[in-house]
Amino acid sequence: MSKTTRTETKSGSRRAFLAAAGGLAATVGAARAQGAPDPAITELPDWSRHLGEGVAVRPYGKPSKHEAHVIRRDVEWLTASRESSVSFTPLHELDGIITPSGLAFERHHGGIAEIDPQKHRLMISGLVERPLVFDLEDIRRFPRRNRIHFLECAANSGMEWRGAQLNGCQFTHGMIHNVAYTGVPLKLLLDEAGVRTNGRWVIAEGADASGMNRSIPLAKALRDCIVATHMNGEWLRPEQGYPLRLVVPGWEGNMWVKWLRRLEVTDVPLLAREETSKYTDLLADGRSRRFTFVMDAKSVVTNPSPQAPLRRRGPNVLSGLAWSGRGSVTRVDVTLDGGRNWQEARLDGPVLDRSLTRFYVDLDWQGQELMIQSRAHDSTGYVQPTKDELRKVRGVNSIYHNNGIQTWLVRANGETENVEIS
Amino acid sequence: MSKTTRTETKSGSRRAFLAAAGGLAATVGAARAQGAPDPAITELPDWSRHLGEGVAVRPYGKPSKHEAHVIRRDVEWLTASRESSVSFTPLHELDGIITPSGLAFERHHGGIAEIDPQKHRLMISGLVERPLVFDLEDIRRFPRRNRIHFLECAANSGMEWRGAQLNGCQFTHGMIHNVAYTGVPLKLLLDEAGVRTNGRWVIAEGADASGMNRSIPLAKALRDCIVATHMNGEWLRPEQGYPLRLVVPGWEGNMWVKWLRRLEVTDVPLLAREETSKYTDLLADGRSRRFTFVMDAKSVVTNPSPQAPLRRRGPNVLSGLAWSGRGSVTRVDVTLDGGRNWQEARLDGPVLDRSLTRFYVDLDWQGQELMIQSRAHDSTGYVQPTKDELRKVRGVNSIYHNNGIQTWLVRANGETENVEIS
Repeated sequence: MSKTTRTETKSGSRRAFLAAAGGLAATVGAARAQGAPDPAITELPDWSRHLGEGVAVRPYGKPSKHEAHVIRRDVEWLTASRESSVSFTPLHELDGIITPSGLAFERHHGGIAEIDPQKHRLMISGLVERPLVFDLEDIRRFPRRNRIHFLECAANSGMEWRGAQLNGCQFTHGMIHNVAYTGVPLKLLLDEAGVRTNGRWVIAEGADASGMNRSIPLAKALRDCIVATHMNGEWLRPEQGYPLRLVVPGWEGNMWVKWLRRLEVTDVPLLAREETSKYTDLLADGRSRRFTFVMDAKSVVTNPSPQAPLRRRGPNVLSGLAWSGRGSVTRVDVTLDGGRNWQEARLDGPVLDRSLTRFYVDLDWQGQELMIQSRAHDSTGYVQPTKDELRKVRGVNSIYHNNGIQTWLVRANGETENVEIS
Repeated sequence: MSKTTRTETKSGSRRAFLAAAGGLAATVGAARAQGAPDPAITELPDWSRHLGEGVAVRPYGKPSKHEAHVIRRDVEWLTASRESSVSFTPLHELDGIITPSGLAFERHHGGIAEIDPQKHRLMISGLVERPLVFDLEDIRRFPRRNRIHFLECAANSGMEWRGAQLNGCQFTHGMIHNVAYTGVPLKLLLDEAGVRTNGRWVIAEGADASGMNRSIPLAKALRDCIVATHMNGEWLRPEQGYPLRLVVPGWEGNMWVKWLRRLEVTDVPLLAREETSKYTDLLADGRSRRFTFVMDAKSVVTNPSPQAPLRRRGPNVLSGLAWSGRGSVTRVDVTLDGGRNWQEARLDGPVLDRSLTRFYVDLDWQGQELMIQSRAHDSTGYVQPTKDELRKVRGVNSIYHNNGIQTWLVRANGETENVEIS
């Protein structure tokens, strides 16, 4: 999409890196020669001298107390109440592609339903041959599927439509998480009930106080949706829909109904609040885009970023995440100079269908100002657009589906800001 | 390895399953017709009537209170103290391939080192051109690698050498976990220090009170070892070596030194306690197998199992885990009748190199007694042996490297026991 020249430099040349890495560590000799030796080297720390806590003292573990700042955060002024609000994933503190379950962003419309699994039921009703009610034990008797998928809120980056607003990728891009799900293909449950020939849509409904509901085209429901019971190996967390959540791969997060209690097969969509007054995209001419389900290809540099500045000169790792609701990420370009030159980032770790993909650029930073952007390509050939390109088509009334290229300005002291290039 | 006939039935035939699934759920009509309607259907539960807890009330989330039984457990009589002991992963409660960090088994020799990351250093010394000391900030400036690998304690299933001992796969097979790691290839750090031409081994040493150390062949260190900083997306947990753990793919867990503080390059192995008096395999004739690093192919059925009996007749999901330290799992066979007939299980989810692999058999259980076993095949052509086949070669003095086939007996009431077929 960019008209700028693209250099063909492949990042992370090992030879260049090692040549630059001379200042990466103190040699032991140098440390000794400086007169004031590093006490971290010369003194045996307490944890090497005394027995620590034993096994199973924490039968369910938690992070080090030194990582207590790594948490989901909300923005107080953003919503009227915490029960209908959002908390954001601390993307700048994570690595790899898995989002720890304890840090996966939340979006509730009536607070967290704390469900007793013994009393939970899933009903399939509407245009089916046999209306059915399942308890959890029965759900677990169907053949299972495992998939790693990202879930992105349609409103992720919504504040950025009208310019650089939020100072940190946790807040600009943190309404996303990437989790390994286990569950039952929705098709198997619908087949069990027997969808009638006039069935066209499935209305998914949650058991929370908001009774969240969304209309899902039957073709999508049959193709790849999963009624998930587990995330990252264990039962779903309460804030992620325990004990049942609908997984709708590649589509906007609001459709992944949590605390799932009912699936109603219909011939027409419900036209619910969440697909008419909300989760539609108001264009400049007053018309709305409706049923904009798919999350288009997008990426963000997580490090450096406003919450994670550069701290030392010399070799540094630039890192980020890319994803596409239409398939897999095939390439990520990164620019350090606001789009004049682009290089291809290194994708590392599994590159999976509709999953977050981790990318790296190994760079040598000598204190120069950097204007950093990343640009994702997906398996359909789509290339992530600039925010201005999006605005030309969609105007600035929108809240949803902002997948524009993000820009970070790194100052000479390493401090990093959310900026826009116009 | 088995001489029994192998049927070529592919498990999970969808048509057969659906035909059998008639009793899987109550039809709504049937529920109404029974006179005493299910209150879970007819009464709106509290969590649908009142707002729940808001976002970021738990800035770091945890499981539902209804899953409080899903924990790491230790066995009191197994060791003299909890500081040098083991807790076991609740494999029967998990699904997919990722072990949640809070449930990953522990094995400590001096308790958990609670390390202040600001004060932690990693030294590279010995037969190198430039002895070096790194702090964590510098470690994070090297190019990173992401890999999902299993870690299995060499003593996993050790109690089973002398017959069926422990009643649950948490205890027979729970000294294993499977985690997504992010870190720096060890090769890059060794290259930075410059290994001398006479270097043959790397001694890895921990900063815990036991000063755990192991000798690793240089070729392995250069090939695929990782100095990990992150697990499952976030910083390592304290009990898993925060802030640095050595990842030694496919090799026994004791070598994956936690709280890593030193890497010394040598020309000979250290012959440390943990590779002479421990972590060697005493044979029947009094000789010992030494440096038995690789964990051979193995598998276990996690459901049903003694802690997770069958509860309802009709369709059920048999599930388990398979792995190999020599490569990837290519096939898992399952028998329901003690080895007379075998069927191929369905592998689901990513099948990765030296990672746990999830398998399923969708079965129809009508209350018959089952004698269940699973048998893993790996990409080298190796097939998991029976326990008796192992005993013929290794005797019964061993503690370590028991990868024999496990047997569960399912009774007519669904209760399941750890048994042996002789």
